[in-house]
Amino acid sequence: MLVDLADKWVLLMLASLRESGVQRYSELQRSLGGISRKMLSQTLRTLERDGLVLRTVDVKMAPPLVLYELTELGREIAEETRALCTWTEKRTATVYEARAAYDRR
Amino acid sequence: MLVDLADKWVLLMLASLRESGVQRYSELQRSLGGISRKMLSQTLRTLERDGLVLRTVDVKMAPPLVLYELTELGREIAEETRALCTWTEKRTATVYEARAAYDRR
Repeated sequence: MLVDLADKWVLLMLASLRESGVQRYSELQRSLGGISRKMLSQTLRTLERDGLVLRTVDVKMAPPLVLYELTELGREIAEETRALCTWTEKRTATVYEARAAYDRR
Repeated sequence: MLVDLADKWVLLMLASLRESGVQRYSELQRSLGGISRKMLSQTLRTLERDGLVLRTVDVKMAPPLVLYELTELGREIAEETRALCTWTEKRTATVYEARAAYDRR
């Protein structure tokens, strides 16, 4: 299962749904700049299958409105990954310095 | 940088070095069952370049002894990922049930 989580798009999608709540497909695609439609659909399907994302379809709308949101389980893991994202933002400069030093060897 | 962390072998290597401290290449290979030599070397190089792992070579030994350990920065992120690993272990059954239900649709 760690394999599903150890994926850049999964981590970014959990963060997007955590921060912005319920979203349409197009809104998710915009918030995850650079993701292909194929990867977006695949990542959504993986998270839905793992019980982390809920997909709802409002058939009263024309065309039907498809929405995605975190489940309770999804909110749990999204909180756990928040610390990872915060650390990454905080330490980016330090890691870039380490890389520059490594490359100068 | 999140891309480096969003990788199964990186997460497992951080956990192994966190739990077992300083290790030789062969010890790491054993603790990360199933990892290829190519992936192990590549993952170690990524983590060393990011400043998360320290590689030391004791040339007084014959053959030279190569050891790997977490840096201070590495210990930081290893702690952040601990929660992710703990959640994964705790919730594995729940996710498998969600997958079974999804597959029965």
